[in-house]
Amino acid sequence: MAFGWIDEQAELRRRAGLVRTLRPRPADSPLLDLASNDYLGLARHPEVTEGAARAARVWGGGSTGSRLVTGTTGLHAELERELAGFCGFEAALVFSSGYAANLAAVTALGPHGSLIVSDAGNHASLIDGCRLARGTTQVVAHADPDAVRKALHTHDGPAVAVSDTVFSVDGDAAPLAALAAACRERGAGLVADDAHGLGVLGAGGRGAAYAAGLAGAEDVVVTVTLSKSLGSQGGAVLGPARVIDHLVNAARTFIFDTGLAPAAAGAALAALRLLRREPERAERARAVAGELHARLTAAGHAAVRPDAAVVSVRAPSPESAVRWAADCRTAGLAVGCFRPPSVPDGVSRLRLTARADLSGDQIERAVRVIGETRP
Amino acid sequence: MAFGWIDEQAELRRRAGLVRTLRPRPADSPLLDLASNDYLGLARHPEVTEGAARAARVWGGGSTGSRLVTGTTGLHAELERELAGFCGFEAALVFSSGYAANLAAVTALGPHGSLIVSDAGNHASLIDGCRLARGTTQVVAHADPDAVRKALHTHDGPAVAVSDTVFSVDGDAAPLAALAAACRERGAGLVADDAHGLGVLGAGGRGAAYAAGLAGAEDVVVTVTLSKSLGSQGGAVLGPARVIDHLVNAARTFIFDTGLAPAAAGAALAALRLLRREPERAERARAVAGELHARLTAAGHAAVRPDAAVVSVRAPSPESAVRWAADCRTAGLAVGCFRPPSVPDGVSRLRLTARADLSGDQIERAVRVIGETRP
Ligand SMILES: Cc1ncc(COP(=O)(O)O)c(C=O)c1O
Ligand SMILES: Cc1ncc(COP(=O)(O)O)c(C=O)c1O
Repeated sequence: MAFGWIDEQAELRRRAGLVRTLRPRPADSPLLDLASNDYLGLARHPEVTEGAARAARVWGGGSTGSRLVTGTTGLHAELERELAGFCGFEAALVFSSGYAANLAAVTALGPHGSLIVSDAGNHASLIDGCRLARGTTQVVAHADPDAVRKALHTHDGPAVAVSDTVFSVDGDAAPLAALAAACRERGAGLVADDAHGLGVLGAGGRGAAYAAGLAGAEDVVVTVTLSKSLGSQGGAVLGPARVIDHLVNAARTFIFDTGLAPAAAGAALAALRLLRREPERAERARAVAGELHARLTAAGHAAVRPDAAVVSVRAPSPESAVRWAADCRTAGLAVGCFRPPSVPDGVSRLRLTARADLSGDQIERAVRVIGETRP
Repeated sequence: MAFGWIDEQAELRRRAGLVRTLRPRPADSPLLDLASNDYLGLARHPEVTEGAARAARVWGGGSTGSRLVTGTTGLHAELERELAGFCGFEAALVFSSGYAANLAAVTALGPHGSLIVSDAGNHASLIDGCRLARGTTQVVAHADPDAVRKALHTHDGPAVAVSDTVFSVDGDAAPLAALAAACRERGAGLVADDAHGLGVLGAGGRGAAYAAGLAGAEDVVVTVTLSKSLGSQGGAVLGPARVIDHLVNAARTFIFDTGLAPAAAGAALAALRLLRREPERAERARAVAGELHARLTAAGHAAVRPDAAVVSVRAPSPESAVRWAADCRTAGLAVGCFRPPSVPDGVSRLRLTARADLSGDQIERAVRVIGETRP
């Protein structure tokens, strides 16, 4: 029977305790949220939701076509201008998701005959970009500029190194300046995925590349998502205008995808303007992460020192991680739970996000619940 | 210099007359629109834009996380239930785009050791799905069930055939019932991308699979986009509950992508309910396409008989197609222009979409402009 093999896989998952199920949340969830990626607490900010609502009214429910046909509105152009300006890059290109932006950047900048050097801890979307690209991919040790340097030395012709700026599982930062230096030695480009850095790192949340002095560099391309700090949906690629023009002409997930919905562009633009006006939100997210980490460590948890707003706490096993997260939920606290096969190293963890709008009391409560439910 | 090779490619494109540029449109464009994929004229319908605005207010600007963490709201579940019910399938899963839905369906249903039989005219997102999948892909002749049958006979083990239901370039339909029969003979599954069929084909716009008597079949999986007939953004996979559960557990563009923005889910849901209430919109889109084709053919144009709402008109060359589309635009008519490398056969065309809300006068005006600007 067609799809019969699916049942066997489902049975294996069941036995391994790795079944995933969807749990729709209500609009007025009573849970304390340390699970979402809403780092700045903007997803439900009235200016952001009004930005979405207004854009839908003015521009429509959808963009109605590929960005190359009818899917580019004045609103998309405005968002691209302001996003590039804020992060310090010449130009920007908006996509329907960060995933699509990463597929675009890696495939368009890793053509036939090129070398793509990819960090072993990279996000799934960068990995899929490497697999779709016509170039050859070499995976190198995690956060290791020397490994990147060595890999680039094996190759003549176009080359790029590809890395998350903040790794989504453990929340650790890439050595971005050293990576860029290694790339420069060989005339290679750097593609940095700042999904977890935008809004959190750099002056006023301008991102990891800005913080590393790489904003606007002619050999650096940054990808971002609009779905985390900016509380919306979508993604973008930032870089030199010639790279952006190249993406417009060559990136399949740009050319063959419907443009981002106006409401998502409007929400992201409103969030960006809010962040400009209230730059302390970025600092606050980092401070909350630092406080979470300090309190968890003091309580004896194996928490990883956060470089941005993700705090990872190791669990003894996939089963205990799942139970831990479930017990937190029962006690009123939503936390993320990462386990195989979503983690590169097989280690299961709780994943906490430090929202800028968490109060001291909320942080204390979260740490208490995590301690009381510890497996 | 990093990215230096880009300039050479840009120069080649310039010489070949194949440079693509973005043209932001205003909110109140005076152009008559035969370029968008807004087949039912719903993208700017007040119920649809209000659906988007309300959802943003109630649920926030973004879904705030992966569908497996915080990104599944009650609204997503509602949309999935109604979409599955409308199209006659057991279950549905919503994605951030139709592109992501296609990547998910093909990769999750084309595992290691499997055979994926792919129509030569398939959309870029299905092709990328084939390239990302661990199975082996065999590309077969366009719209040819016998070719699919032969390809399937070469293989033991899991297999799927993958096809657009309506091909986006020429607007011709796949022989869906015959494809399903060929698959059944070999116990293979069928993955049908109904991006251009939903809202247009089948009773009340229930789609191509419904029209072919395949809705709810245990060996058929349908992907759709929310960005065309439903005037929003996003995509979905429809099929047996066990296939949907499998996608939740195995599809990378589901697991590692932020959930669809509430506003997009709200707009799509409003459009779906509108379509249920006004099923004649589907029929009207097909009738407009038929009328466009008849008038264009009568005027001596090389128009392809439309099976849905896409009407393709062949142009002598890429340059003349670009000029033709530009001259139409100057005369107040927006039409699509497909040319290499976006067309599988190298033939350039104008691509017209038959919106259900075009009046007889508008159709007449469109045909007149296309005739007057003919190269
Ligand atoms: C590091 C990283 N890159 C890219 C993405 C994809 O972004 P999006 O959810 O907007 O598709 C994510 C998370 O979703 C991520 O964590
Ligand atoms: C046949 C087909 N499949 C899939 C897609 C992708 O859908 P989306 O734009 O929602 O990503 C499109 C067009 O965009 C399409 O024409």
